[in-house]
Amino acid sequence: MEQEEFLQVYRHSLSHILAKAVIEIYGKDVQYAIGPQIEDGFYYDFVLPEGKSIQESDLKGIENKMHEILKRKENWTRKEVSRQEALDIFKNQKFKTELIEDFPADEKISIYYTGDDYVDLCRGPHVENSQELMSSAFELRSVSGSYWRGDEHKDSMTRVYAYAFPDKAQLKAHKDLIREAKERDHKVIGKQLELFHFEPSAPGMAYWLPRGWKMYNALLDFWRNIHDEHGYQEVSGPVLSKKELWVTSGHWAHYQDGMFILPAEDDADVMALKPMNCPNAIKVYQTKSRSYKDLPLRYNQVDVIHRKEKSGELNGLFRVQEFRQDDAHTLVTEDQIAPEIADIMKIADEIYSTFGLTYGAELSTRPADFMGDINSWNKAEEDLKKILVNQYGEGGFEVNEGDGAFYGPKIDLKMKDALGREWQMGTIQLDFQLPLNFDMKYTAADGTQKQPVMIHRAIFGSFERFIGIITENFKGEFPFWMCPYQIGIVPIRAEHNEYAKHVADLCRKNGLRVEANYDDDNMKTKIKAFKNYKDPYILVLGDKEAEEHTVSINIRGNKQLNGVPLDKFLDMCDQMNEEHSLEILDTVD
Amino acid sequence: MEQEEFLQVYRHSLSHILAKAVIEIYGKDVQYAIGPQIEDGFYYDFVLPEGKSIQESDLKGIENKMHEILKRKENWTRKEVSRQEALDIFKNQKFKTELIEDFPADEKISIYYTGDDYVDLCRGPHVENSQELMSSAFELRSVSGSYWRGDEHKDSMTRVYAYAFPDKAQLKAHKDLIREAKERDHKVIGKQLELFHFEPSAPGMAYWLPRGWKMYNALLDFWRNIHDEHGYQEVSGPVLSKKELWVTSGHWAHYQDGMFILPAEDDADVMALKPMNCPNAIKVYQTKSRSYKDLPLRYNQVDVIHRKEKSGELNGLFRVQEFRQDDAHTLVTEDQIAPEIADIMKIADEIYSTFGLTYGAELSTRPADFMGDINSWNKAEEDLKKILVNQYGEGGFEVNEGDGAFYGPKIDLKMKDALGREWQMGTIQLDFQLPLNFDMKYTAADGTQKQPVMIHRAIFGSFERFIGIITENFKGEFPFWMCPYQIGIVPIRAEHNEYAKHVADLCRKNGLRVEANYDDDNMKTKIKAFKNYKDPYILVLGDKEAEEHTVSINIRGNKQLNGVPLDKFLDMCDQMNEEHSLEILDTVD
Repeated sequence: MEQEEFLQVYRHSLSHILAKAVIEIYGKDVQYAIGPQIEDGFYYDFVLPEGKSIQESDLKGIENKMHEILKRKENWTRKEVSRQEALDIFKNQKFKTELIEDFPADEKISIYYTGDDYVDLCRGPHVENSQELMSSAFELRSVSGSYWRGDEHKDSMTRVYAYAFPDKAQLKAHKDLIREAKERDHKVIGKQLELFHFEPSAPGMAYWLPRGWKMYNALLDFWRNIHDEHGYQEVSGPVLSKKELWVTSGHWAHYQDGMFILPAEDDADVMALKPMNCPNAIKVYQTKSRSYKDLPLRYNQVDVIHRKEKSGELNGLFRVQEFRQDDAHTLVTEDQIAPEIADIMKIADEIYSTFGLTYGAELSTRPADFMGDINSWNKAEEDLKKILVNQYGEGGFEVNEGDGAFYGPKIDLKMKDALGREWQMGTIQLDFQLPLNFDMKYTAADGTQKQPVMIHRAIFGSFERFIGIITENFKGEFPFWMCPYQIGIVPIRAEHNEYAKHVADLCRKNGLRVEANYDDDNMKTKIKAFKNYKDPYILVLGDKEAEEHTVSINIRGNKQLNGVPLDKFLDMCDQMNEEHSLEILDTVD
Repeated sequence: MEQEEFLQVYRHSLSHILAKAVIEIYGKDVQYAIGPQIEDGFYYDFVLPEGKSIQESDLKGIENKMHEILKRKENWTRKEVSRQEALDIFKNQKFKTELIEDFPADEKISIYYTGDDYVDLCRGPHVENSQELMSSAFELRSVSGSYWRGDEHKDSMTRVYAYAFPDKAQLKAHKDLIREAKERDHKVIGKQLELFHFEPSAPGMAYWLPRGWKMYNALLDFWRNIHDEHGYQEVSGPVLSKKELWVTSGHWAHYQDGMFILPAEDDADVMALKPMNCPNAIKVYQTKSRSYKDLPLRYNQVDVIHRKEKSGELNGLFRVQEFRQDDAHTLVTEDQIAPEIADIMKIADEIYSTFGLTYGAELSTRPADFMGDINSWNKAEEDLKKILVNQYGEGGFEVNEGDGAFYGPKIDLKMKDALGREWQMGTIQLDFQLPLNFDMKYTAADGTQKQPVMIHRAIFGSFERFIGIITENFKGEFPFWMCPYQIGIVPIRAEHNEYAKHVADLCRKNGLRVEANYDDDNMKTKIKAFKNYKDPYILVLGDKEAEEHTVSINIRGNKQLNGVPLDKFLDMCDQMNEEHSLEILDTVD
């Protein structure tokens, strides 16, 4: 039995044990509904008898009862019964009855007995004897409210969640991961570090606080420099545009539900907030007539865009309604697709490696309803494959056959974070369609008018989401070069303020982001505040030592270097900053 | 007679001469409507007899006829007639008849005869004899369509425009100014330099082309650095927010017509694009409890904002619907108003003087419907006055008594451009109201909760408008530090490309914005293209000269320096860039 299948049988069987335990404790009047397995265990939904309830504090008792049941080593017996027999067996169980009534009248229904006294409606398979479950590791996690069939107009129920794994080591590893993920929650760290903030009046639209905005701009500068070096030209276009633009682009037909729309009396005056930047890049392209000599034309763009999300799906910076993509649109001839994609892969590598992120690639190819010339598709897919083989080797990347968009094949880049979680990050999307919709042209070498191919791409995905991901990845301890403030300066007493101001100025002139606290708080309070912000360096400044002024450096709140000459310190900072290094230096040569 | 009054009599009289000339040429059936004076002359509206029209090419003939009439030295005679008499006199003039019918029945109506055969309905005064107009300088400027009473549903008319000044020197000066302004039109230069672009699908919302966006960001960086130095913290807030925010801020009640609104089924879900940033700054302030020790808190912010304008009022970058203010909101105690405003005036001075712009100030004081504590108003106004007296001396600034907003007094900063045109630029606005609306607080030294005062301010006004203004001011020859590209590199022949790449790299590493043309076009074509973009320096690179490589520098398209050692050239650039100097250096020491 494979691990996944094993987990399924195992978790499912345990959910029956949970229901049996609840019935044994709360009595035969417990109405038990469904108990499916989930990613890291299972749950079961109950309606408890009048006046009874399950609290967090009751979970340990239920868990003990489950262990007690397992020790009975009861057999699991499967029976097939007719619909009517099933209705009889479950006549006191409202929800089971409802489920049975959904079966066709002539279909046999499978039920499972655990011991003699507990029966559940179940397709199986299950273990054959409860003993098999003894080696298991499970833990009741939490209890919460739910609704029958997830419908708030139906019965409200009590849902008991459990973790369940094949052994204790796996359970512990999972719980460690959960705890770690909780400690890394970007919403919590974002608040602690004063990076961003959400208001009820702007759901899913971040306020960037001074510290967060400094980081945002450090990230933007880094991104801009790389694109400058790769020959991109940054543009900016309107947030609002009339319907006609979105009709031409196809967003009106295919993406209207995701758009914020401003109605108007005259249909031609209807406007929408842009959900994507592509039409802007096209309009910039079309401000001049273009020749093959001008291509590739690479436009990068980081304007604010808006996409509607259901309010229940908003989640910190991970799912927002207002954000900036690290967007780019490149116009190429068909022959330029291969070298251009290769260059984009290089950019992606430069960016991800700066953050120490490992990533893999997936190729999505021509779907059945593809549009355009099949030869162009074939050549483009070959080009993409060659590039991926070159980088990852044969079989080193996934191919999702037929999963591309109708307008072109694409490469998705997925990265793993420090907790091993996978994130969809970059996308490189070929597009044969949009240039056609907007009738884009260039003059080819032979003097004819040809249509360029468009490449859409993002490496971060969006600045907002990327900041959320790396906040969790680094647990708020960002690389030196992107920290909101790189240095916090603490003069020990008021008499050291003057020297502290001198040092702060010196750091600023060296291009560092510095904050200083000249209040009359005591030294420890000041250090604690900067530690809380996770400033990578905290300089503690007191009296002159020996011949020259020196500083004491508290590094990332744990290492301490005393008596460091100031010029050495500035050298350290320079070194880290210039190379966008991940390392925080903790030695002085 | 004062100049202004003289111009009024004079221009008005000339408009009668124009009408008389048109009638003499086109016949008695000409319907003449009204002929008011305007800023630089006058116009007259006519309906010409069936089959006749006035073209640009006819203007000279009409002008000659006017001179001929003046030479007749006819007397001007004023008469007062009854309404009925007037109706009789003008019985063949449709529009005059309509005007007369608007008069009360018993009112005397004044009419003016010029000679015996031309009479016009007019309040006067006029000259007494046409001879007085002989010294005048006028010129028929243009002819265009108009509507009776400006209403497109009424008669369409022919409007003849004329410049008119007391003498030829003044007319010439004015025409020079017009020509110069036309040459400086930012819409024309913006196109030539490829700075920005407008699409019909986004009226009044600029597309920033690669070159323009580089300049925009150079300007933004300059502005950010100054604010960093003055202790500002930049924030960013959502473009969209729910109605509730705008109700609290008062924009919903007072500014709704200027806002782009997204309706919703549920009134609470109605959203609007922000027309101002103020509520964002307030929400950022309120993310923490604040103490008097934290104040002043200075938030600068450059988010995209939207304000509705009538389409007829849109004008390039001067009047747009989407723009970024160089916004800032400072929260202060009442005692901090004076030093804070003084600091803002210093920032304004640093910014304007960097562009070589001279400016003056106007103070607007408490209106009748002021809100808040009169003592706070008095103290604040005294503070503002002292600062202005300090900077401009007594009487060195205008005071608009009672012209302040109901929520606080303000200082407006107005600058004069290279053509002597005045522009409203910066505003420094005190606000006692918004902190109250949002219930903003800080803990005072005595432990009580007090309300901060808010200072709104912008120095550029908006980035868009400011770029428009300085484009015209500098005629596209921007200061070195903000040019989209500071250096254009022209290798003379293909064999010099390698050296050109080396020089370009060198320049880039020195923080300069460089573009190079490695195409196989000839040298002159390449130079011409960079001249057209007004790149301040064009480096022409050929063979090695003597011991070291040198460059030939074409400066602003007119001066030429040959054989400049490269390191000298880089020194020059550094010097200009670091100081945000206005000067383009044209010597090598």
